[in-house]
Formats: sequence, structure tokens, C-alpha cells
Amino acid sequence: MSDLIKAEIMTIGDEILFGQITDTNTQWIGTELTRLGIRPIRKTSVGDQTADILSAIGEALLRADVLIITGGLGPTKDDITKKTLCEFFDTTLEINEVALSLITDFFTKRGREMTELNRQQAALPKVCTYLQNDWGTAPGMWFEKDGKIIVSLPGVPFEMKALMTHRVLPALKAYFNPPLIIHKIIKTIGIGESFLAETIESWEDSLPLHIKLAYLPHFGQVRLRLTASGTNADQLNQDLEEEVTRVLPLISQYVYGYDAEELESLIGSMLIKEQATLSIAESCTGGFVSQKITSVSGSSRYFEGSVISYSNAVKMESLGVSESDLIQYGAVSEQTVKAMAEGVRKKLNTTYGLATSGIAGPDGGTPEKPVGTVWIACATPEFTTARLLKLSNHRSVNIELASAYVLDLLRKSILQTAHA
Amino acid sequence: MSDLIKAEIMTIGDEILFGQITDTNTQWIGTELTRLGIRPIRKTSVGDQTADILSAIGEALLRADVLIITGGLGPTKDDITKKTLCEFFDTTLEINEVALSLITDFFTKRGREMTELNRQQAALPKVCTYLQNDWGTAPGMWFEKDGKIIVSLPGVPFEMKALMTHRVLPALKAYFNPPLIIHKIIKTIGIGESFLAETIESWEDSLPLHIKLAYLPHFGQVRLRLTASGTNADQLNQDLEEEVTRVLPLISQYVYGYDAEELESLIGSMLIKEQATLSIAESCTGGFVSQKITSVSGSSRYFEGSVISYSNAVKMESLGVSESDLIQYGAVSEQTVKAMAEGVRKKLNTTYGLATSGIAGPDGGTPEKPVGTVWIACATPEFTTARLLKLSNHRSVNIELASAYVLDLLRKSILQTAHA
Repeated sequence: MSDLIKAEIMTIGDEILFGQITDTNTQWIGTELTRLGIRPIRKTSVGDQTADILSAIGEALLRADVLIITGGLGPTKDDITKKTLCEFFDTTLEINEVALSLITDFFTKRGREMTELNRQQAALPKVCTYLQNDWGTAPGMWFEKDGKIIVSLPGVPFEMKALMTHRVLPALKAYFNPPLIIHKIIKTIGIGESFLAETIESWEDSLPLHIKLAYLPHFGQVRLRLTASGTNADQLNQDLEEEVTRVLPLISQYVYGYDAEELESLIGSMLIKEQATLSIAESCTGGFVSQKITSVSGSSRYFEGSVISYSNAVKMESLGVSESDLIQYGAVSEQTVKAMAEGVRKKLNTTYGLATSGIAGPDGGTPEKPVGTVWIACATPEFTTARLLKLSNHRSVNIELASAYVLDLLRKSILQTAHA
Repeated sequence: MSDLIKAEIMTIGDEILFGQITDTNTQWIGTELTRLGIRPIRKTSVGDQTADILSAIGEALLRADVLIITGGLGPTKDDITKKTLCEFFDTTLEINEVALSLITDFFTKRGREMTELNRQQAALPKVCTYLQNDWGTAPGMWFEKDGKIIVSLPGVPFEMKALMTHRVLPALKAYFNPPLIIHKIIKTIGIGESFLAETIESWEDSLPLHIKLAYLPHFGQVRLRLTASGTNADQLNQDLEEEVTRVLPLISQYVYGYDAEELESLIGSMLIKEQATLSIAESCTGGFVSQKITSVSGSSRYFEGSVISYSNAVKMESLGVSESDLIQYGAVSEQTVKAMAEGVRKKLNTTYGLATSGIAGPDGGTPEKPVGTVWIACATPEFTTARLLKLSNHRSVNIELASAYVLDLLRKSILQTAHA
């Protein structure tokens, strides 16, 4: 690894140092650089003070070949990254006409007034290469100095990610031509990290040296990331496919997809393939499941709608749950969640109906039904399946987990129906 | 600000640099230090390499009076913080008997076998003061060098937080007796950052030297953070209140809350105060608004439920939108969104009814109604208000923005109704 390419990731802004905003950018950038074969060796956050920023940049370039800077590019007085970069590179600002026309369009399209501050966002250090931002008003900047690369990007996560993905990562790959690194991600749901690790231990121990395994757990799902490094892309892809084929028999019932494929988009393609439609009745998840389904563009092709029945009145009137069931078994019960799934399926006239009913917490728990008790159900043309989940004490975690598990229940139900 | 006490926060571990785990520690530590009146000036993350850690610590002590280090204290071989600290302070490890007895208890209580690795966790650098960890097996360490403080803590968030709260923060306060720093956050919605900046420019320019202003934008909202530093808490709070009183008339129609208050929880308390209830009809936001409302624990007190009407069939059958309106004006229209808000309010029998209908994208746009065209409405006992939004080309952004704006529309409608 003598030709290891080292990167430093820098965020600028008092709000990060003072803990007033959560920095999700540097984790994402670290993941992407690693995937590209560039090694992050340092992360640095500095405040909005010119001297601190200047020294931090100077120090970074003594350590790293690439410096990715985010933040401090807003139009307001407290954003000083551009001025500071001018000082560092001993240059001045000049209006970039392409950037200016893009910013002008941005405001015209929205019928919003453009201020002088907005216009100044098109002013860039003379020595930089402009990275076109089609996603917002703060331009990206690319600098070269003594064979090292300095990139400055806006801190708004989706603008930063778009600029990294479409401008910076391809340019870094072209500039440094880092050693080839290829990833294959196996996505599992419904099996814990440690149990998964035990299940595939012998396979993991037998992995060839040029393939590394990482466990990436996230709300009831565990992603297995295989990383192969070498020089021949075809060979590496073939090696990865062989390992997937070897491990799959051990965990097939937990695997739902690969690489960037999300559970909700996978379900979308399954429903389109079956020419099936979906409706959802949500209680404890409060709209989270529907929001996941509709986060997929084109979901209107198979998603009819949902009833979020927080109150029993809505469960009865909009879903046809019987009052006697609610009294006898309660809202959080197998009977009620099945009635909800079948009710919404009938009411909205869809192929499948999903339902959730539980105690998300922090209040509402009882000795028999503690916080984290959640029933989920899926109604199909042939059958209705319900499952009891025993989750955590944390409201947001319970909502995330219940939503992931009910989507997996739908996936399995579609598979059964399709093969029935 | 000559007696400003500066802090650096350092995390140790490859997993953070490579983006494999989310670092929540440094945000929490930054908040707590700021609250104490100690100014975080730098955050640094380094990997598990001795040389990198040594140089990072050396650099930090040139800048800061306090260095808080987390991570690298686990029992396994790749955790090298303690060895490295011995090297930095030119000392050696020795077993701390108090720590050893605590660790022994820890394993005895859990009926687990204690390994030599666990025993070695009680070995500490001779020159450090032991910070008793009653919450786990990795001891905290306190070092003094040339009037500067170096603290090393485990990376496990709840152990780190307990040690900071009960050991480190009180000790830092006693050692430095820091000047006060007090924050006041004004939360606005519905006005862009640059337009807001121009609106309050004269006020911003007239701020006293001991009060600083920062703009924190997030999906249609901009938080204004005022930071006052001095010695007298009452005086600083009074100064901040005076500035809020001065700026409020300029932006009152955009201000919805202060400090930690979120829009959805503010709405919750307003509804409880009015003994009012809420229902929601969502089309383009697909459940996002309901999910925001139900993210607040106790929301079942005022939230009855929602109808997510993705298809026109559901808009007609579950919300009573007239087919002729849908044909004449389309689903994305003032007529339809008002009918949705009034329909869900009537159907679910609530005080207020909210509705969204728009083209989130990326598909479905037309020349008359491009992607980003969103209608929002709020129905009250007295009136129904609708608003047209022209948002972006990005589905997820449009969903976030439309949700924020419709919640703000509800807030304004509640205020009007309450004062009607």
C-alpha cells in the first residue's frame, strides 16, 4: 500500500463544534472515499474563524493528498470559507457567469426575488475550477496545489452528496487512479448481527485475503459488505459472485436484496411485476410505513393509499374493525391487526393490505403489553398473516423497526402468493 | 474574550474515519462544553495508529486548554489509546486496585468469566487521575500538563455521557471556572436565509460585541442562533431577551418557536391547550406529515388519524372529493386540496383537517404544473385556507418542504381560530 492515497475530511462551522447540528456529511464522505480506494486518515471540524480555517487547511495538506471541505458557503455574513480560500491561495473572487446564470434560473423558476447576497454566491476564487451545482445555489470548488487536491462543497447534505457523486468522486478517480476496490453488499433482515456472524463464521474464515467482510447493522437489517481489492475488475466481480453463491444457502431466508437496492423499492418492482396494488393501515407507525413506500418515485403505480388509524373510532369507521374485538382483545392484538389489514385491503380495493398496531412508547405500556409490543399483519387474496414483535423502549426505534419488519412481511407474502 | 477557555474534542478509531459507525459523541460533548462556557475550537478524528494519535494530541495541546479524547479503550488489541497516552506522558501502566475491584464486581454480578484482557482494563498510566466508571469496564482518565487538561473516556456513548456528566464536567468547572456562554435560538419558517439576512441586516449590524449571530437553515426553516458571552447569567439572559424583542417585529410572521422547540411538538401543545383534535389527508407527502405529528410522544391525545389518498379513487371514496372537481381542476388544485382538508376533517370528526396534493417528482410534471407544484390546505371550524407552493425538482426535498409548510399553515390557522 505504498501508493496509498490519503484523504482528510474537514467541516467548517461553529454550529458543528457547538453541537447544534448533527454532522452526517463526514460519515457519508468517509464511506464514499473508502469505496473509491482513497483512505481517510483524519477528520477535522473548525469554527467560523479565518485563522483557524487557514491553519487547519495548511496542516491537512501536510498529511493528506486530498482535502474535502464542507460548509461555510452560505450567502450570509457568518459564512467565510470562500474569503478564506482566497487568502490561502492568494487570489481574489470573480463572478463565474455559468454559476450566476444557474443561480438566476434557480430563483426565476421559483418566482422568488434574487438578492445581492444570492448574486455574490456566484463569485469564486480565480484559481479554482467551478463544480457546477445543479441542486442548489452554492457552487462547488476544485483546487490543485503541488499535486494535491482541495475540494470545497456546500454543507447542505443533499447538495454535497450530489456534487460528490456527479463531480468530485469521478474527478478524483481520474486524477489519482486509485487501486481498484469493488464492493458487493448482501442485504439481510430479521436476523441479529451476532447470530448472523455465528451462522456464517466458517464461510467468513475461509474468505480469500483480497476479500474483506464488514457487518453494517441498521434498524433490524444487517448489510454484509464484501470488499475486493486488486487490478482486474472482471476477476474481482467474479470472485465476489462466487462468495455470494457460497454464503447464500446459509442465510437465504434473511436476504432480500443486494447493493443499493432498498426494501421499499424492491417491493415496488415486485408489485409492478405481479400487477398488484397495495394499501396500508397504520397505528403505532403513524405514517412511517406509507412514507417509506411513497419515497420511491413511481409508487403511485401500485400504492393506492393508507388509513392512519390512531384512534379506535377511526379503526372502526374507516377500517371496519369490530367494536367487540377492540373491547375483548384491545387495539394491540392479533385479532385487531388482522382486521385492520383485511379492512384496508377491502376498503381501498387492493391486492395486499398491510397493518401495524403496537405500543411505541414511552407511555402506554402495561405488564401484559409493555412498550415495544407491536403486532404486524399482511392480508393477501389467499391468506392473512400476523406477527408479534417485541421491540425496544425507544419510540423512534420501535417505529423504524416495526416498519422494516412489516415491509419484510409484505415481501414474503408476495413471494408466497406469487408461487401459490 | 482573553480568558476564553478552548477545548478540542478527539475521537480515536478507524471505524469513524471509514464511515462505518455514526459518531454521536462529539456532538453531545460539544453541546455540554458550550453549555459550561468552554469553547470547542476543533474536532479531530484519527485512526488506530500510534503515530497519528501522538501527533494529533501534540497539535491539540498547542491550540486548546482542554482535550477530551473518546474511544480506543476497549480490551482488544486494536485499542491502543492507553499505550499511546503512556508514550505521550512518558510513563507506564500499573493496575489501579479500585478500578480492578469494580471490574471484578461487574463480571461477578453478571455471572460472566473475567479474562486477563478484562483485568488489563484496570491498568492505568501512573501519572493519571482515575475517573471511576460505574457504568462499564473501561476507566476514565484525567491528566494535567502545563496547566492543560487531557481527559480520556470510553467511546460507548452511555458510558462516556455518564463519565462526562458525573466526573469530567464538574471537575472542569472547578478547575477553570469558565466565563458564561448563553444561547438563544429563534426558529423561523417560510423565509429564505438570504432574504431573512437582508430583512434583519440593520439589527444584526447593531448587535453588541458580546452577542454573536449565526444562521442555521434546514428545509424551509432557518434558525437564528444568538450567542452571548460574559460573567453575569441574569444580565446575559436580559441582553438576549432585549435583542429578541428588537428583532421580532421585523420577522414576527415567520417566527414559530425558540430554542429546542420543534414545530410538530409546538403544534401538539397548541392543540392540547385548545382541546382541539387533528386529522390529515396526504397525497404527495405520502405519510410524511402524519409521521412528523406522531413522532411526538403523547400525540394520540390530539391526533385522530389520516387518510393517505394517493389514488383519485381514495380521494373520492375516503375523503368525499367530487369526481367533477377532480376532472375539471385535477388532483393538484386549490379546489381538490380544500375538499381533501374539509373531507378528512368531517370524516374523522376533528377540529382541524390538513391536506397536501402536489407533484413531488421526478415524473408527473406538466408545463402548467411542473414538478414541485404543491397545494396545501388547512380546514378549521370557521374557514379553510389553501396555499400554492413552488418547490424543487427533488422528490425527497419537496416532501420535506411541503410537510414543513403545511404544519406552519396549521400553526397559523390555530392562532387565527384561537384569537377569533
